[in-house]
Amino acid sequence: MPKFMDVHSGFVGVTEAQLKEAHERDLAIEGHEGVHFEHAWLDPESGKVFCLSTGPSKEAVMRVHEKAGHPTTEVYELPIEVD
Amino acid sequence: MPKFMDVHSGFVGVTEAQLKEAHERDLAIEGHEGVHFEHAWLDPESGKVFCLSTGPSKEAVMRVHEKAGHPTTEVYELPIEVD
Repeated sequence: MPKFMDVHSGFVGVTEAQLKEAHERDLAIEGHEGVHFEHAWLDPESGKVFCLSTGPSKEAVMRVHEKAGHPTTEVYELPIEVD
Repeated sequence: MPKFMDVHSGFVGVTEAQLKEAHERDLAIEGHEGVHFEHAWLDPESGKVFCLSTGPSKEAVMRVHEKAGHPTTEVYELPIEVD
């Protein structure tokens, strides 16, 4: 299953509880699109959020975020990774 | 130890072997700055690379990448995460 990183802006000053709540809205509906959001990281100073997911396509990832109320068009497919 | 995500652009068409080689240049010198690069993901179509690391500061992360030959100024501190 392809892996994706998506990026959100505008989350300045967001708390851990608020990020958790937003993430849980994704988790509640992601199954409809065959997507799973694995992890999300927030920089509350710049307002950037990075979400790592698996799913069938970029568009599926975008649809989940849009329905959950935090749309983004910045989604990258990640066929290559190292650690 | 603070966690960071940094973003690189311009890696269009880069292969897994090339990403591994670039990542190993970070790993070879990261200890001088107290940084550890945990993971890197590449979208070879857009040329974006996302690197997850731990370290003492953004500036330390930037110094390692600069000395390894792939500087970036786009580094985000990630005090909040969910999964």
